[in-house]
Amino acid sequence: MAQNIYDTPEFFEGYSRLGRSVHGLAGAAEWPVIRSLLPDLKQKRVVDLGCGFGWFSRFAAEEGAASVLGLDLSEKMIARAKAENAHPAIAYDIADLEHVELPQAAFDLAYSSLAFHYLEDFGRLVRQVHAALVPGGKFVFTIEHPIYMASANPGWRTDEAGRRFWPVDGYSVEGRRTTDWLARGVVKYHRTVGTTLNTLIDDGFTIRRVVEWRPSEEQIAANPDLAEEMDRPMILMVSTER
Amino acid sequence: MAQNIYDTPEFFEGYSRLGRSVHGLAGAAEWPVIRSLLPDLKQKRVVDLGCGFGWFSRFAAEEGAASVLGLDLSEKMIARAKAENAHPAIAYDIADLEHVELPQAAFDLAYSSLAFHYLEDFGRLVRQVHAALVPGGKFVFTIEHPIYMASANPGWRTDEAGRRFWPVDGYSVEGRRTTDWLARGVVKYHRTVGTTLNTLIDDGFTIRRVVEWRPSEEQIAANPDLAEEMDRPMILMVSTER
Repeated sequence: MAQNIYDTPEFFEGYSRLGRSVHGLAGAAEWPVIRSLLPDLKQKRVVDLGCGFGWFSRFAAEEGAASVLGLDLSEKMIARAKAENAHPAIAYDIADLEHVELPQAAFDLAYSSLAFHYLEDFGRLVRQVHAALVPGGKFVFTIEHPIYMASANPGWRTDEAGRRFWPVDGYSVEGRRTTDWLARGVVKYHRTVGTTLNTLIDDGFTIRRVVEWRPSEEQIAANPDLAEEMDRPMILMVSTER
Repeated sequence: MAQNIYDTPEFFEGYSRLGRSVHGLAGAAEWPVIRSLLPDLKQKRVVDLGCGFGWFSRFAAEEGAASVLGLDLSEKMIARAKAENAHPAIAYDIADLEHVELPQAAFDLAYSSLAFHYLEDFGRLVRQVHAALVPGGKFVFTIEHPIYMASANPGWRTDEAGRRFWPVDGYSVEGRRTTDWLARGVVKYHRTVGTTLNTLIDDGFTIRRVVEWRPSEEQIAANPDLAEEMDRPMILMVSTER
């Protein structure tokens, strides 16, 4: 079973205080770009992989999706999704994406936000999603960017001249990374951009868009802290079609 | 006109001493992977964009290509290609890839090695290549990896704990970079992985393979200096189909 860091009290409390947890999609700076990658959701059958508190599932339902299946490993998150983001079109369920068995040819859109970097076996999940989508179905997801994840010692550095940069090391050494984020010992799995894309291509997906998210000028003007996102990408977005 | 750094004496002399200049394709550690991305060349019409001394053009001709057009901005390089890598199937010509006009539907394969990061307008070149290929034609190229190119101050760093890493800054700030490599003031143009791929997709290419080159274990065993290539990718390879 995948590590379920989200259900540890320390992590859950910290995660619950993030802007995206309090304010939902509007609290995630990358959301406008994700939305631009999504198809029209009306009458679509949607699966939300790693749905968390259910903000996207609710968005999809309110956009007119025929059905939404929200899956997450975390019991606490599913409980809160059911309590706060319920909708007649949504079914929430606990599921470990590392071992999930999805119904075949049952969805028009598979969506995931910042979940797959917790998976050791991305290839298995991609095969599951491919079989779960109808032909022409879309698979849109975000992950932590490999540039952000690669280093054994991630974090901003400043050199003797006062210049800020992000360290990259071990980029081509794929696999387990252990970091401290909200809690100690969070386990993630680094894969290169190439491996992520080739895994999708090998399984029959067509790459439609690859976005290394950056804030807009308006976002930086409103929140100058976002300027550092121009120095290294934190989020990789991929839009594909079966 | 694009900067023609190759024809400055300092750069040309330095470039001429590189392993890949002296030993051709066998002197380029990434060549075995490039070759794995290439189609069978027999009877193919090939254009080699930024052909340098003509090593690839000659390889393609010796593999049985019907014709090879080798283009390079550098008069000195084209002169040496004609002198050292001539073949009845090859025509070498001087051309600035920034402004080149290729014949339409004239090629089965467009190839380029480590040239496009010198182009300010990658989109124009991609449109030229798309029109120059027949349907089903292949476009395979390598560029300096954006992780390698992004920083305003590229080069290995070592922190207080003795850990080696590569600095990344300005990754999402695309455009001109000036570095010193073989000569001072070499101008290159940084584009993100996403921009490179989306430019191809927007023009009708299907992405077949994205490789962030890393040395094999055998290569590192034979040449331990290559181990640092595992820390950050220097070369991005893209294989596409029209």
